[in-house]
Amino acid sequence: MSRFLSPEAARLAPYTPGEQPVDMQYVKLNTNESPFPPSPRVLQDLSQEEAGRLNLYSDPACGRLNRAIAARYGLAPENVISGNGSDEVLAFAFRALCGTGRGVAFADITYSFYRSQAALFGLEETIVPLREDFSLNVDDYMDFPGTVVIANPNAPTGMALPRLDIQRLLEANPDRVVMVDEAYVDFGGRSALPLVEKYDNLLVVQTFSKSRSMAGLRIGFCIGSEKLIGYLNDVKFSFNSYTMNLPSQLLGAEAVRDDVYFKAITARIVATRERVKRELRTLGFTFPDSKANFIFASHETIPAQQIFQALREADIYVRYWNKPRISDSLRITIGTEEEMDTLLAFLKDYVSKRRF
Amino acid sequence: MSRFLSPEAARLAPYTPGEQPVDMQYVKLNTNESPFPPSPRVLQDLSQEEAGRLNLYSDPACGRLNRAIAARYGLAPENVISGNGSDEVLAFAFRALCGTGRGVAFADITYSFYRSQAALFGLEETIVPLREDFSLNVDDYMDFPGTVVIANPNAPTGMALPRLDIQRLLEANPDRVVMVDEAYVDFGGRSALPLVEKYDNLLVVQTFSKSRSMAGLRIGFCIGSEKLIGYLNDVKFSFNSYTMNLPSQLLGAEAVRDDVYFKAITARIVATRERVKRELRTLGFTFPDSKANFIFASHETIPAQQIFQALREADIYVRYWNKPRISDSLRITIGTEEEMDTLLAFLKDYVSKRRF
Repeated sequence: MSRFLSPEAARLAPYTPGEQPVDMQYVKLNTNESPFPPSPRVLQDLSQEEAGRLNLYSDPACGRLNRAIAARYGLAPENVISGNGSDEVLAFAFRALCGTGRGVAFADITYSFYRSQAALFGLEETIVPLREDFSLNVDDYMDFPGTVVIANPNAPTGMALPRLDIQRLLEANPDRVVMVDEAYVDFGGRSALPLVEKYDNLLVVQTFSKSRSMAGLRIGFCIGSEKLIGYLNDVKFSFNSYTMNLPSQLLGAEAVRDDVYFKAITARIVATRERVKRELRTLGFTFPDSKANFIFASHETIPAQQIFQALREADIYVRYWNKPRISDSLRITIGTEEEMDTLLAFLKDYVSKRRF
Repeated sequence: MSRFLSPEAARLAPYTPGEQPVDMQYVKLNTNESPFPPSPRVLQDLSQEEAGRLNLYSDPACGRLNRAIAARYGLAPENVISGNGSDEVLAFAFRALCGTGRGVAFADITYSFYRSQAALFGLEETIVPLREDFSLNVDDYMDFPGTVVIANPNAPTGMALPRLDIQRLLEANPDRVVMVDEAYVDFGGRSALPLVEKYDNLLVVQTFSKSRSMAGLRIGFCIGSEKLIGYLNDVKFSFNSYTMNLPSQLLGAEAVRDDVYFKAITARIVATRERVKRELRTLGFTFPDSKANFIFASHETIPAQQIFQALREADIYVRYWNKPRISDSLRITIGTEEEMDTLLAFLKDYVSKRRF
C-alpha cells in the first residue's frame, strides 16, 4: 500500500480538460464553449444587492433555479436536481444508481469523464464500441442489465440518436436506468425530456455550459422521476450540502427564463456550423453529421496531429486525442463567424501548401 | 436489491443542513454564518466585465485563487487545493486517503458531515468519544493506524486544541495523515498551518464561509505537502474538473488579499462573543470556552429543546440536536451586536418568567 494514498484512489483515471491558454491572444475552439456572452438579463442580475448577501449560505436545495428549470420544461421542481456543472450531477447519478451488482455501460468513443467517474466509484464498466461509422446502435445495449449512459448528441462525434431509440432502450428493461447526457442537445438533437413523465427509469442530464453560454458559472441539472431525483439528492447531501453558490443559482434562474436570447444564439451557432461544414468539405475534410456545437473532422490526406500542431502554432486551439479510432480527427468547436473565418482562412492556406 | 438504488447509496446517511427560513423577518443564528458582508473590495470586483466572460470555463486549477491563498500563508501554490466549499475538499481528502485497509477516526461529537462522507465512500469509521467535559484528548488517537480528522476548534463545542497536540499526533505516526478542519480557527484558535512545511502527513482545511463572510460563494481550501495535495487533485479530476466557478475564483482571490477587513470583522465577532458569554452566564447558562463564532450553551434548569422552541416562535433561529450527550445544549451563532441584543433580551425575559 502507498504511504498515504488509498487503494481506491490509486486506481483513479483523472480526466484531462482541454487546455486553457492563459494569454488571451488566440482562437479558442477546444472546449465547446459558447462564443457568446450569457443573456443580458443575466448580466443585469449580477447586482451589488445580491453581493451583500454573500455572507449567508446559498439555498442547499437550489429551489429558485430548480423551479425555473421545471417551469421551462413543464415539469415539477421535484423532477429536477441542479448541481455544480453536469459533471457533478453525473457523479451523483453514478454513485446513486451503480455499484455492487449493478455496473455501467457506455460507448468506447464518448465523453471520457464517464470512465473517470466509474473508476472513482469502483464500478464495473462495460465498454460498447460504436459501429465503424461512429454510429451508436441501441440494440448493442438491449441486454445490458446495469445502468446505460448515452451522450446524445455524442461527443466528440456530434452524432445524434432519434428519440425512439432511447424509448426502445427504456422499454426493453424497466428495471434499468438509462441516463441520457444531453449536453449538446440544444444545437439540433431531439431531447428525451418529453419521455420523463412516462418512464421512471429515465434520467436526462443537461448543462448551462454550452447553449446557455455559462461555462464559467458551472451549472448542470438532471431531470427524472421524483424517486430517482430523490436518490441523487441523498448522494448530494452525503457529499456537500451546498454545491451551488448564490451567483450561479440567481443567474442560472434568470438565464433559463430568457428563451428569446437562448433561441437566437443557438440558431446562430447552428447556422455557422452548417456553413463551416460546407467549407471544410471543399478543403478535403470529412466528418460525421454533427448536431452539436462542434465538428469532428478528419482530412483526406493530412494527419490530424499535424494539422493540430500547425493550428496551435497559429494560436488556434482545437482538441486532438492521440487515441485508438479517433487519432485521425480533430474536434473543432463552433465559435463566432469571425473566429471560424480565421480558422478556415488558415486551413485553406495550409491545405493548399500541403497539396502542391 | 432496490429497483434502482445501488447498495452503496442505500447505506448513505445524508447530512441535514441548518434550516434556511425563506421569509427574511428573523434573527438567524443557526448556521454559523458571518453577520457581515464580504470585504468591499470583493463587491467592487463583481463587475460587468467579468460577467461577460462567463461563457468560458473557469480555470480548472483555480490558479489565481490558489496563488492568493499561498501568498497569504507564505506557501507555494502547489501546497493548496481550492474547492467548492470545505465540504468538497474534505470529500476529496476522504477519498484520496481512506479506503480498504485504512479507516478514519474522528470524535463522537464533531462536525456531523464526517460521518456522511465516510458512509459515501464506504469507509470503516472509528468514533472516539470526547471526554466528559467535551474536551478532545489527542492521546486517544495516538495508536490509531488510519487517517485522523480533528475539527479545531471543534464544532459544536467551540473548544480549541493547542498546536502542540496536533504536532504530537503528527509525530506519533508519520505514515498516517492527520486532517485538521480549521473552519473556525480565525476566531481565536491556533492554526496548524505553520507545521505544513515540516510534516508531510498534515492536511489543514479552511473555509471562506465563516471568517471571510462568503458562505454564499462556496469556497474552501486545503493546505498540505505537494504530494498530498496532488492526491486530492487526482480525485477532483476524477469527479468534476471545474468545481469552482468564475465569480468564486475572482472574488475569493480578492477577499484573501484584504487582510485589514478580515482582521476587523473577526475581531468584532470575537468581542461580541465574549460579551455574550458574560451575559449568558448571568442568565444561568453554562458552556465550554468557545474559540469559534458560536457558543454551545445549556441552561441550569430549562431544557434546551424548550428554549429552542420558544426562540423559534420569536423568529430567532439557533441550532438544536436531539442526540445523545448534546441534547441539553443549543449552538448559538455570534451575529451582529443588534442580533445578539435581540437574543439576550428575549432570553432575559424568558428565563425570568420561568424562574418565578
